[in-house]
Amino acid sequence: MRVYVGLVHYPVYNKNREMIASSVTTLDVHDIARLSRTYDVKTYYIITPLEEQQRLIMDILNHWTNGYGAKYNPDRKEALSLVRITSSLEDAIDEIEEREGKRPIIISTDANRMEEKTISYKETSDLIKKGEPIFLLLGTAWGLYKSVLDMSDYILEPIYGRSNYRHLSVRTAAAIIIDRLIGRYNYG
Amino acid sequence: MRVYVGLVHYPVYNKNREMIASSVTTLDVHDIARLSRTYDVKTYYIITPLEEQQRLIMDILNHWTNGYGAKYNPDRKEALSLVRITSSLEDAIDEIEEREGKRPIIISTDANRMEEKTISYKETSDLIKKGEPIFLLLGTAWGLYKSVLDMSDYILEPIYGRSNYRHLSVRTAAAIIIDRLIGRYNYG
Repeated sequence: MRVYVGLVHYPVYNKNREMIASSVTTLDVHDIARLSRTYDVKTYYIITPLEEQQRLIMDILNHWTNGYGAKYNPDRKEALSLVRITSSLEDAIDEIEEREGKRPIIISTDANRMEEKTISYKETSDLIKKGEPIFLLLGTAWGLYKSVLDMSDYILEPIYGRSNYRHLSVRTAAAIIIDRLIGRYNYG
Repeated sequence: MRVYVGLVHYPVYNKNREMIASSVTTLDVHDIARLSRTYDVKTYYIITPLEEQQRLIMDILNHWTNGYGAKYNPDRKEALSLVRITSSLEDAIDEIEEREGKRPIIISTDANRMEEKTISYKETSDLIKKGEPIFLLLGTAWGLYKSVLDMSDYILEPIYGRSNYRHLSVRTAAAIIIDRLIGRYNYG
């Protein structure tokens, strides 16, 4: 299994459908790192071009992997050691390509169904099972900007719950998506 | 579908396996409310005996359902209107019983497998499909205290990811559990 997860803070939409760089939410760092560790994700990339935000994430990582937090809660250290910070999506893709010897298949996620390039959970699972390197992109704020969807190989089907309400947090959406794609309950 | 979710802040374990009342995490209120709205959960109970903590939750709810937040983000209002605060688990159970005309089946969750009363996701889905009222309990801090497990009808199978690491946040665990039990992807 060669699955990578990227949490994108730029470029994403704001409430008014403008392109922005969003702020990092501390619990996104922790929750998705713990999820990644649970499901054997190779690296969890946090992508932001803002240096101040990169420093904030570094402080969190240092506290939990080297500082007091590492002694207080070694489980958290184990999860947060999967986190990498990059300034751009391209840098993350290049790093994965270097590690895997080929460019990963880029699969974006969106709360709305796209006309083109939609891929089902089953098809994505099959790619993962075949051993393809996959880079799963999650958008913060009001979702991944159009340019990210355009450069992706596929866009994953939205999560349909039991209503027309589609406003999950990125943390809970990430959990549902990763469990559907690689949880033992669903396949294997 | 008659599914209720309860987020328990008392009685739960702390890191040293002592019984405590935990503090409310703001994002637990939001994330699990949005999840509940997405999956058509009837009521999301937040259970804490601490009056100061109850006031904190009330402030959040007021801001988003009556205050500025309701205008700024009506989607959030829709989710948070599913939240009820009770001082004890018993109060929540009594309320559900009054509404449903029968006592709900109480299903606790735990990161570790219990010897007794374990129920699978499939069996729980089947109870839900049969129209039974279900009260799904989630523990904060280091998990639901023994007395809660003892009074439950069933304890749900833990979430196994792809590793032995089992330290998900309650937000992401709730998302995975609810999607497995009532997501359209998994049944129906």
